[in-house]
Amino acid sequence: MTSPTGTTDGTAHHRVVIVGCGFGGLFAARALRRGPVQVTVVDRTNHHLFQPLLYQLATGILSSGEIAPPIRDVLRRQRNTQVLLGDVTGIDADRRSLAVQTLGSQWEIEYDTLIVATGAAQSYFGRDEFAAAAPGLKTLDDALEIRSRIFGAFELAEREADPEERRRLMTFVVVGAGPTGVEMAGQIAELSRRSLGHNFRSIDPRQVRVVLLDGSQQVLASFPESLQRRAVKALGRLGVEIHLGVRVTGIDAHGVETSSDDPALQTVPSLVKIWAAGVQASPLGQALAEATGAAVDRAGRIKVRDDCTVPGHPEIFVVGDLMALDELPGVAEVAMQSGIHAARTITRRLRGKAEKPFRYRDLGSMATISRFRAVVTLGRLRLSGFMGWLAWLFVHLAFLTGFKNRVATIASWTVAFVGHGRPERAITAHQGLRSAPAQPAEAAPRVGPELGWRE
Amino acid sequence: MTSPTGTTDGTAHHRVVIVGCGFGGLFAARALRRGPVQVTVVDRTNHHLFQPLLYQLATGILSSGEIAPPIRDVLRRQRNTQVLLGDVTGIDADRRSLAVQTLGSQWEIEYDTLIVATGAAQSYFGRDEFAAAAPGLKTLDDALEIRSRIFGAFELAEREADPEERRRLMTFVVVGAGPTGVEMAGQIAELSRRSLGHNFRSIDPRQVRVVLLDGSQQVLASFPESLQRRAVKALGRLGVEIHLGVRVTGIDAHGVETSSDDPALQTVPSLVKIWAAGVQASPLGQALAEATGAAVDRAGRIKVRDDCTVPGHPEIFVVGDLMALDELPGVAEVAMQSGIHAARTITRRLRGKAEKPFRYRDLGSMATISRFRAVVTLGRLRLSGFMGWLAWLFVHLAFLTGFKNRVATIASWTVAFVGHGRPERAITAHQGLRSAPAQPAEAAPRVGPELGWRE
Repeated sequence: MTSPTGTTDGTAHHRVVIVGCGFGGLFAARALRRGPVQVTVVDRTNHHLFQPLLYQLATGILSSGEIAPPIRDVLRRQRNTQVLLGDVTGIDADRRSLAVQTLGSQWEIEYDTLIVATGAAQSYFGRDEFAAAAPGLKTLDDALEIRSRIFGAFELAEREADPEERRRLMTFVVVGAGPTGVEMAGQIAELSRRSLGHNFRSIDPRQVRVVLLDGSQQVLASFPESLQRRAVKALGRLGVEIHLGVRVTGIDAHGVETSSDDPALQTVPSLVKIWAAGVQASPLGQALAEATGAAVDRAGRIKVRDDCTVPGHPEIFVVGDLMALDELPGVAEVAMQSGIHAARTITRRLRGKAEKPFRYRDLGSMATISRFRAVVTLGRLRLSGFMGWLAWLFVHLAFLTGFKNRVATIASWTVAFVGHGRPERAITAHQGLRSAPAQPAEAAPRVGPELGWRE
Repeated sequence: MTSPTGTTDGTAHHRVVIVGCGFGGLFAARALRRGPVQVTVVDRTNHHLFQPLLYQLATGILSSGEIAPPIRDVLRRQRNTQVLLGDVTGIDADRRSLAVQTLGSQWEIEYDTLIVATGAAQSYFGRDEFAAAAPGLKTLDDALEIRSRIFGAFELAEREADPEERRRLMTFVVVGAGPTGVEMAGQIAELSRRSLGHNFRSIDPRQVRVVLLDGSQQVLASFPESLQRRAVKALGRLGVEIHLGVRVTGIDAHGVETSSDDPALQTVPSLVKIWAAGVQASPLGQALAEATGAAVDRAGRIKVRDDCTVPGHPEIFVVGDLMALDELPGVAEVAMQSGIHAARTITRRLRGKAEKPFRYRDLGSMATISRFRAVVTLGRLRLSGFMGWLAWLFVHLAFLTGFKNRVATIASWTVAFVGHGRPERAITAHQGLRSAPAQPAEAAPRVGPELGWRE
């Protein structure tokens, strides 16, 4: 290993390891920019994912590069920081050491202070068999998979003669009416009604059925009621069917089964299903709990002290979606602020200053419904419709990482929102639309496992 | 099947089926826009691939959407044309019918006139076992795979302690010094020397070794000698090592073995190898030859008459890279012109006009070496350096499909050529960097074969 993880000779070599470079990890790393520390960022992927715009990758508006810049490029000017690709699989809290894997090769990294920011994964509430038929929207791969399913469904429908099967191919079910579910349902409705015009000869994409299900009685439960009502109205105008108080009891390749009293809803034949219903802590959470004796909540998140550290381990911080503290929601803003808090606490300690507890400042939340429409809370302000959308636009551009990505994203949004374009619709053999017998030999993956690359 | 393939009641319902929508198929379809025909375009993918820019996708400059617009979107205004996703697996020339597969379901499509434009695939000259270690650059998947290998190699090198292994990780071998090989070698040299600055702490990407091998004694053999010399010089300045008259005798995960007399070249340890050495006809060529009795050349291309039709089958045209005629090269310009010729011949026939043989007008050829440098022949003109690059820029923008893609591509080129950016570098789990033991469960593909999607 060549990372700067030498011995600790004074604070200048205090080694901070940050695991995971989502919003929590990235903002922690940035806040340590001028700190008297050596920072190592370890992530399973090579990119920082701007998750709030993942739904736009999944629906053909943005490219993967626009929402997933390379971590090392984002942090390239930060001389005290090294970025390493690796999957942290274990924690030895006594030896202050992490077990890491990169393409099958095993290595170790030592820390003086650790920031764990590995976030959350999709939860199927114990029904993991739903995952194959209804992917969630958490990673770049999820989004590319969902994108190829959505646009692939239209391809199949165009050459389907049986009206019933065609109806199934053109029925999209989104499970979960939080921000992700609302955004996906809104975008699918919008792309089929606006973007695919003139693209088909046999089907009319405007007849797509988009079904949004939620077990609770609310859409956007975390928002004020007035905005919930507006969201329901706006989705209705887009043609999204909303069914609340409906639990999903089964999902398979053919469709969705629900707890509804309405026989028409008990079985919904549908090719493309999207799961946006729940999250659980990332797997490293459990390893961390076992290594430190920390308690976890029902979602597997680590219960931390009010300074974001693990009880009994002031040298281990947990930030972002993996952190259970004061019932804070799993949103980007909490991750950013807790990441910055951890970084500042480390700097304060090394400089002998008094520590402070973490105080979350709720700056509000937002969800887009369609182009030019969003619901937004900003402090006491409530915005919806076009004003909400402008606020959404401004905030997302401000937080997007890097000037180049902002320019590229503005260009793509102009194409998509002012024009009709969904330019990023290419279906690859890797993502979707590959079935064993239907593809000639050369479309099969050609890369051997001996390389360590995908098999 | 719901495609407009009903009975032939007069020329207005003359059914033209175009198989494959590369340059040959697309230009044929477009030239039939006002023809008295019903056109059906069948392609294995949903996109038209702008292959001459594939190397820019593979090296992080462009996104897949920028070079691969959806076929049905490109042809959306062409009311007499339907686009269907399917893999043509068989031809019945007597019944004038094609066997097609879409995700495992089998269907048929009938034609009155057929245009086969399925192009060429990579050829390993009988050494198909090279493919796993050294992918070619023919499809979107190829480019994404190569992209993740290139950027993944730097990730691995950054945390490699062993200097010899690090050297292997930072050695890139490109086999074949035609335009694709030259462009890939030039881009890898340029991205490591320009774009990755400040990105690493342990390695210096400028020390990357790029090795360009060719069995012949020439770089860019199809170009005039003066331009060949300039290309060699420009590649040398970029730091590309060129070895000519060297045959590759073995490629595996570890590296490349060659026929060279120089012991240092007999074994070149290298993680990332790219094959740009040969092409062979796409698999449909053989089915077509068997169905029609047509002769094929050594690369499996169909020998056609001077009007691009199959001997004895005036209703079957073969255009583009699958066509063997007058030793025409397998370049985009031949595909476009032969596609247009087939379309015009069909229109002439239906209107009772005299047919004409295909006359190829060689408008020249071009290859980029690096930003601001290209070699170009345009008629009798020979350009190199910046003037060549301007010509390259102009021609590629002119031929890129769609206004939106041109605007997006200009933006990306500005970022890459004026700035330093390689914004499209995201490595997904599907493309590269996935090894069975190193990845936690949720990174595994979640989609079941029961869906017909990728397993």
